[in-house]
Amino acid sequence: MKSTGAQPIVVTMGEPAGIGGELVLKAWLARKKWQTPCFFVVDDPSRLQRLASSLDWNVPIVAIENPQNAIDAFSSALPVLTQELPGSSTPGDPDAANAPAVIESIREATSLVMAGRASAVVTNPINKKVLYETGFTFPGHTEFLAEIAGSKSRPVMMLVCPNLKVIPVTIHLPLIDAIRSLNRNQIVTTVEIAADALVRDFGIERPHFAIAALNPHGGEGGYLGKEEIDEIAPAVAELKARGLSVSGPTPADTLFHEYARQTYDAAICMYHDQALLPAKTIDFSNGVNVTLGLPFVRTSPDHGTAFEIAGTGVADETSFVSALSIAYQIVERRIGYNPHSLQESTVTQHV
Amino acid sequence: MKSTGAQPIVVTMGEPAGIGGELVLKAWLARKKWQTPCFFVVDDPSRLQRLASSLDWNVPIVAIENPQNAIDAFSSALPVLTQELPGSSTPGDPDAANAPAVIESIREATSLVMAGRASAVVTNPINKKVLYETGFTFPGHTEFLAEIAGSKSRPVMMLVCPNLKVIPVTIHLPLIDAIRSLNRNQIVTTVEIAADALVRDFGIERPHFAIAALNPHGGEGGYLGKEEIDEIAPAVAELKARGLSVSGPTPADTLFHEYARQTYDAAICMYHDQALLPAKTIDFSNGVNVTLGLPFVRTSPDHGTAFEIAGTGVADETSFVSALSIAYQIVERRIGYNPHSLQESTVTQHV
Repeated sequence: MKSTGAQPIVVTMGEPAGIGGELVLKAWLARKKWQTPCFFVVDDPSRLQRLASSLDWNVPIVAIENPQNAIDAFSSALPVLTQELPGSSTPGDPDAANAPAVIESIREATSLVMAGRASAVVTNPINKKVLYETGFTFPGHTEFLAEIAGSKSRPVMMLVCPNLKVIPVTIHLPLIDAIRSLNRNQIVTTVEIAADALVRDFGIERPHFAIAALNPHGGEGGYLGKEEIDEIAPAVAELKARGLSVSGPTPADTLFHEYARQTYDAAICMYHDQALLPAKTIDFSNGVNVTLGLPFVRTSPDHGTAFEIAGTGVADETSFVSALSIAYQIVERRIGYNPHSLQESTVTQHV
Repeated sequence: MKSTGAQPIVVTMGEPAGIGGELVLKAWLARKKWQTPCFFVVDDPSRLQRLASSLDWNVPIVAIENPQNAIDAFSSALPVLTQELPGSSTPGDPDAANAPAVIESIREATSLVMAGRASAVVTNPINKKVLYETGFTFPGHTEFLAEIAGSKSRPVMMLVCPNLKVIPVTIHLPLIDAIRSLNRNQIVTTVEIAADALVRDFGIERPHFAIAALNPHGGEGGYLGKEEIDEIAPAVAELKARGLSVSGPTPADTLFHEYARQTYDAAICMYHDQALLPAKTIDFSNGVNVTLGLPFVRTSPDHGTAFEIAGTGVADETSFVSALSIAYQIVERRIGYNPHSLQESTVTQHV
């Protein structure tokens, strides 16, 4: 069993009607196969016990009061820090009565990691529609975490797959609002945060970023849109002037085929689907969402609550286990961070 | 050598500073290897001869006056219907003086195919910026062809790869204008034209269409955009009511991975890059652009003028040769069209 920096990773409950519970159970069952790092979950022990029983999975549940106890407990039982659920937790059928507990699980996990009592937080998928109906106002998990953290930096979402890293500049907005809000400063800030993270958390000495265009054919010199000329190209120029290694704006449809992917360390995308579509097309199961720009390490699996298969046990735990592993690797790298031991970027350097 | 319906395929010159000329030469040189169907090109014979000489490729050029002569000539020489170029044709360096000849080559090819003197038209890539500067006002090749053809139907672009067919509802518009213009009727019309083409030109008896959402997470029930609720879902309902096999709107990022692609015959996309990005990511070299809804068969390679490599001979002819082959197959299928000999859709039928 691996534990990170002497502290376990904290996992949130996520939507209890979704697949989060069975992912946690599966990851614990496969802890030797996957070398899953030590973790505990903020959840309701009785609902996890019922879920394990209904699936006929042998997962002993141990309620812990102190995160530190997870380290000794993990090899023989799944450690759970109790967050009781007031409503029902029927797979596939969300109960709005549970929404406050779902939110509290995220708050508690964040508090623990900020207090240094957990090394990183891995969040299970939530159903935002259920939370919205009970007054939750954040466009996504990421923005909620930034609010709890009181972080001054803007949180930046990076999706990490084995062969591709993508970073959307705008995230959870209607597409038309994402376009309206797109601006040079936002692109520059996003790349700067991403560059820091690729150096510190992923050990790439001088990462190269490919900046995607917004419009078809990259705007075709202004005939098919002006955002490239007005915002994106000036951001690229500013980033170069600041000494960062960037190229673009490049027409997005040509940026993700096998050969193109070898020319950059991460692609900077202008909107959610421009980033997520190629990532999920290339590798549907292994993507991990990493939030950059927070004062702690947070990762999450790259999928939703999957109500349609919840409770059946068929949910694929690959992305969830990868989220635990990447969180572990980042924490270890930060502990051992030495600016002189960085690796070269794997791509040709563009200056 | 294959010839279609006793008539050769006509190929346009495209931008003479681009890679079109060498694609034509390469396709002719590889006519046995690829079983390239018989074609002729509307171009300047002397510039093609110079290009072949500069590359040290042995391509005899024969000027023809009548398309029919291409059939006998093709096995021993590249047949060219003369369209003289007034300007220079230096690879990589477009000369605006040639723009009228580039446009005239498209007009001539279209006239020939509409008069039944050619079986189909394959267009080489143009540089719209060069044409725009000389007063060309069409957003793309496709719209120009529709104008020449006087077609009453709206032209619909389909990108055909070996493992994916995608159809964008909006095409050459700035992304923000594409979103503003998106509407239910346009989606319904596009799918109807596509359904006719998949039946008649691709031999699929009852094609199933997956309709992509526009917004992240498919709009998340209206919290991340309303177009799904206001336009796309009503279009899906209307198409179902008309007896077509459709599903969606589906979040676009989940629509193109290997397993998802097996659930539909073609994906209907809301904007250019939503269609082209997955297609070029999966298969960069083999994509062919097929224009549906025209009164004749038109295909084109799925790439641009590639000025940066023009004249070097390294351009990959795969997409151009595939464009010739698919045009040939469509013409043959139309000639032999028999509604009783259609194949079943390869996907599970959704009614």
